[in-house]
Amino acid sequence: MNVTKVRSSTNTYKVYIGEGLLEDLKSYLPKKYTSIMIVTDSMAGSYYLDKAKKGLAGEKVVATTIPAGEKSKSIQTFYNLHTDALNYGLDRQSLILALGGGVVGDLAGFVAATYMRGIDFIQVPTTILAHDSSVGGKVAINHEQGKNMIGSFYPPINVVYDVSTLFTLERKEIRSGYAEIAKEALIADRIFFQSLMEIDLFDLSNDQLASQIGRGVEIKASIVEADERESGVRKHLNFGHTLGHALESMLGYGEWTHGELVAIGMLFALRVSEDVFGTTLPYTQLHSWLRKNDYPLNLPDFEVQQIIEKMKIDKKTIGRSIQMVLLRDVGAPVTVQVDDNDMVRYLKSFMNDLKKI
Amino acid sequence: MNVTKVRSSTNTYKVYIGEGLLEDLKSYLPKKYTSIMIVTDSMAGSYYLDKAKKGLAGEKVVATTIPAGEKSKSIQTFYNLHTDALNYGLDRQSLILALGGGVVGDLAGFVAATYMRGIDFIQVPTTILAHDSSVGGKVAINHEQGKNMIGSFYPPINVVYDVSTLFTLERKEIRSGYAEIAKEALIADRIFFQSLMEIDLFDLSNDQLASQIGRGVEIKASIVEADERESGVRKHLNFGHTLGHALESMLGYGEWTHGELVAIGMLFALRVSEDVFGTTLPYTQLHSWLRKNDYPLNLPDFEVQQIIEKMKIDKKTIGRSIQMVLLRDVGAPVTVQVDDNDMVRYLKSFMNDLKKI
Ligand SMILES: NC(=O)c1ccc[n+]([C@@H]2O[C@H](COP(=O)([O-])OP(=O)(O)OC[C@H]3O[C@@H](n4cnc5c(N)ncnc54)[C@H](O)[C@@H]3O)[C@@H](O)[C@H]2O)c1
Ligand SMILES: NC(=O)c1ccc[n+]([C@@H]2O[C@H](COP(=O)([O-])OP(=O)(O)OC[C@H]3O[C@@H](n4cnc5c(N)ncnc54)[C@H](O)[C@@H]3O)[C@@H](O)[C@H]2O)c1
Ligand SMILES: [Zn+2]
Ligand SMILES: [Zn+2]
Repeated sequence: MNVTKVRSSTNTYKVYIGEGLLEDLKSYLPKKYTSIMIVTDSMAGSYYLDKAKKGLAGEKVVATTIPAGEKSKSIQTFYNLHTDALNYGLDRQSLILALGGGVVGDLAGFVAATYMRGIDFIQVPTTILAHDSSVGGKVAINHEQGKNMIGSFYPPINVVYDVSTLFTLERKEIRSGYAEIAKEALIADRIFFQSLMEIDLFDLSNDQLASQIGRGVEIKASIVEADERESGVRKHLNFGHTLGHALESMLGYGEWTHGELVAIGMLFALRVSEDVFGTTLPYTQLHSWLRKNDYPLNLPDFEVQQIIEKMKIDKKTIGRSIQMVLLRDVGAPVTVQVDDNDMVRYLKSFMNDLKKI
Repeated sequence: MNVTKVRSSTNTYKVYIGEGLLEDLKSYLPKKYTSIMIVTDSMAGSYYLDKAKKGLAGEKVVATTIPAGEKSKSIQTFYNLHTDALNYGLDRQSLILALGGGVVGDLAGFVAATYMRGIDFIQVPTTILAHDSSVGGKVAINHEQGKNMIGSFYPPINVVYDVSTLFTLERKEIRSGYAEIAKEALIADRIFFQSLMEIDLFDLSNDQLASQIGRGVEIKASIVEADERESGVRKHLNFGHTLGHALESMLGYGEWTHGELVAIGMLFALRVSEDVFGTTLPYTQLHSWLRKNDYPLNLPDFEVQQIIEKMKIDKKTIGRSIQMVLLRDVGAPVTVQVDDNDMVRYLKSFMNDLKKI
């Protein structure tokens, strides 16, 4: 088992990563709770809710299931979960346990943060992407006008990551999660990046999953420990996200997964980095790894000007030039202002390149 | 001007209490903000919104007004304020300023706590009761099933208390606020209590208001500093609230104010304390002060059993005996379990006494 400690401003929690942890879920509870409410979604729950309940045998456990998908990160579902918690009689000594991907984690975490002004919660991630969302203490729901607009910083008490749950994931969800691991490698660890470029995403062992997710968690943890509130280095985690988020909002959170679009965003960021710093970066290597693993790279024909507008709305920089995370080298990220004219040029040539290959 | 420092687990803030502070509101901003959103209600806003805006001349200020009254502490108004904040373009460097009583403070504070995961907020209380709600960092909205069920601990950056706003308060609101000041005196300061018993609530000077609110704030501050999360001494602030809250929920948050019912609850707690500790407490003194200041003491004929049930729901102690804060002496509070049989007896004799006088 891989264990990483994460220090937050309010507590220190551990991320346990290994095989079959669900079976023994109870042993990761730090204390006796009056009751435990599992929050899961229709998909993760159909596979793992019974297992989780078994792992908690002897505890007073109730469960509530939300519809799978980003739409559940809404004010309505948030309020409904509060209603469930009240109906089940949860008190200040109760626990909320999030069993699912980033959607369940973000939502259930925000409910825990605000139920009677905050009760304990434990993350039990069941997607690869959730290695990212379960560490760092950000919890939130969406506003109609923007993702994650309503939320808080509320670290979990523990993260219990059973990698054996990951084998039921759809391929696009595996790609989505691994794009974030590749991102962590690119901004922090050249050797790790090289080793990632050798794997086949659809032929992974439990051990590989545990060790690669573990390394991703370590990188994320060290960054959020240095800058919990995102005033400095935490911004580096946005590598690939300037274009990624813009594409996501244009494509509407459905067909394409978050990580698949971040992957394209990373290719773009590598290209811009090469130009800005006059250096050579592993663009081609990443590109062919993405193709090998069936990442979709065939974007629709967007207007460059429209992309730039979306980038600005996302970063709330209307009128000013866009901030982007670039790499001087693998493992050496920097935040750079890119002015609009340059951005137009970069985007045009990148979209062309992408079509060619 | 009276200034009290309050240390919370995340920051230290100051409570400024004095006359005419609104006129110079700008000087209490700790830094330059990109924009300021004032949240106020229809009543407080009609009197003081223009003054507050003038006091902030030169800043980028927007304002949003909610309907006066407890009903506004709802999930709908909460979401609407987030929408307003997004429409006005508030960013992480913006400020929310709560101009009003406890309703505005609790609600706007919770919006600030959750807007983009937390932005600065300043409390500008305009009721006497808000001396209580603006200190201690509790912010919340109500759930249909219970008051303050959804919220967090989120201390303000500053509290700016202009006592000249208090002269437009309705009489029952003055009574409501002073009941909490009397409570603070009873649990912490005998001399202060005696001095309170000499005042006429409807003939107060700015200086009296500032010094009495100031002493109340000091007492509350020292208690919440010792126990922010209410695991121990903070419970003492519930003196008078066991019966007070039960009556409030039976009478439905309308005609009677919170403090008026807490006042009756304090009389009850004094009676029980006298019996439990075999001592004499200033029941009669408080009672005649309440009458002199027109506190309503004519409760409807409630079933004792019904009151007890409400007490248990409020404290979530179904099945177990009720915890009450009692006084060994003025200034010496203790938390005590009162079993159901005793409670019946105490309530019956208290309700009778209350009718007689
Ligand atoms: N808090 C943070 O720091 C942070 C960081 C990154 C992303 N996020 C958030 O995370 C969310 C995305 O997370 P996600 O990609 O995990 O999405 P998700 O939770 O929607 O999961 C993706 C899909 O996989 C299904 N699923 C989950 N576990 C499964 C399993 N074991 N087997 C089969 N199917 C399974 C889900 O039902 C869903 O349909 C977004 O809302 C994003 O904003 C948060
Ligand atoms: N956060 C805490 O620790 C805490 C503590 C105690 C109470 N509270 C909360 O505070 C709320 C009650 O506060 P409140 O009594 O101030 O209620 P309130 O905010 O509703 O104000 C009472 C009435 O006075 C009006 N008003 C406000 N300022 C005025 C002024 N200067 N002149 C004339 N009218 C004015 C309001 O419009 C309202 O109608 C409750 O929701 C309670 O839960 C919170
Ligand atoms: Zn991401
Ligand atoms: Zn009160």
